[in-house]
Amino acid sequence: MHQINIGEDLRGKNREIAEENREMLKKHGIFSLNLMSAPGAGKTSLLVKSLPMITDRYRIGVIEGDIQTTRDAERVKKTGVEVYQIQTGGVCHLDAAMIHSALHSLDLDALDILFIENVGNLVCPAEFELGVDGRVMLMSITEGDDKPKKYPLMFSESRLLVFNKIDLLEHVDFDLQKAKAEAAEINPEIEIIDLSCRTGEGLENWISWIEGFYKSCRG
Amino acid sequence: MHQINIGEDLRGKNREIAEENREMLKKHGIFSLNLMSAPGAGKTSLLVKSLPMITDRYRIGVIEGDIQTTRDAERVKKTGVEVYQIQTGGVCHLDAAMIHSALHSLDLDALDILFIENVGNLVCPAEFELGVDGRVMLMSITEGDDKPKKYPLMFSESRLLVFNKIDLLEHVDFDLQKAKAEAAEINPEIEIIDLSCRTGEGLENWISWIEGFYKSCRG
Repeated sequence: MHQINIGEDLRGKNREIAEENREMLKKHGIFSLNLMSAPGAGKTSLLVKSLPMITDRYRIGVIEGDIQTTRDAERVKKTGVEVYQIQTGGVCHLDAAMIHSALHSLDLDALDILFIENVGNLVCPAEFELGVDGRVMLMSITEGDDKPKKYPLMFSESRLLVFNKIDLLEHVDFDLQKAKAEAAEINPEIEIIDLSCRTGEGLENWISWIEGFYKSCRG
Repeated sequence: MHQINIGEDLRGKNREIAEENREMLKKHGIFSLNLMSAPGAGKTSLLVKSLPMITDRYRIGVIEGDIQTTRDAERVKKTGVEVYQIQTGGVCHLDAAMIHSALHSLDLDALDILFIENVGNLVCPAEFELGVDGRVMLMSITEGDDKPKKYPLMFSESRLLVFNKIDLLEHVDFDLQKAKAEAAEINPEIEIIDLSCRTGEGLENWISWIEGFYKSCRG
């Protein structure tokens, strides 16, 4: 009896295309990050607040993934960087093929760093490699400190965990140390930054992290 | 040439099983709700805070859907209600077949109301009917007021929209009227309740809504 595992087949094909994306980005010397989080954790806000801090040193591109609307892309465009919009039309994650099309539409010779903002979803985006240098996940401290063990794949696949909205710490029941310990249990190598896009606290650590990782990849 | 649309095929099969669930629940006179939201919007907190307000009048059961861990089920069990745990093992939503198995394991003659807490995900759970009387979505006001148009399916499929964490309104940039207007644009029939599981504000409106809808379905 022949059996086809559709999920595995799709995943295998995705990995192949992700490798092509990786080669393409490497060839053009582009450093790339895939930003993932639940809806409303602050991916767009992080880009809007931090991109102006580095546009004097790097040529930045952003690929925006949304199910519907171009709202995030419009917010990011105002920072003056190059933005490419993917509307997934119901699909709950970005995959390598969507990024592949986007790469063919961008002027890759005019970019140093590419940020990919994934669809707001703490589950499915973690299953799809895109071919980037690193995955970054955001978590808003308003989401509750029990999340790492409940959504382990996202934490195990990410190189950096950003806790956002720390300006709200005093108003919610969130044990930051507990959440960090659990994240480290799932992924002992994960790096962690606390910040608030609203107040700006911690944004300089995010910028330093980007520049350090950029140099280790392209230095 | 023959073509198989795998997505449609799965969706069709799911609808059939959802109909079986609906019949089974009706036969036992059980009123049922499917609770959906992004991770950390407060589905479990809403159950934990509000179930003790109605356990004197109704016999309650809860089906808890989680990717990993039994954390939510343990929290809900402390309220003394019947809890059945589904661990989806990576799957990002509940489907009708998972609920069907759960219904066969519960003592349906001993229940008046069944709450189903879906996996924390603002996208995929909205695509899968479970066979319940109504779908309820929660949104934390910390998620940002731009969400309805970005995740329209969840809003169009829900009968009730609960805005949770309204105790944080003064600390975030969230325009509640704008979010409500957008939700109503997507789904003109949607009912809306504002509440805070933390302070208890608005919980009595949630209870009244449950009892009113219960009576209209089973009265």
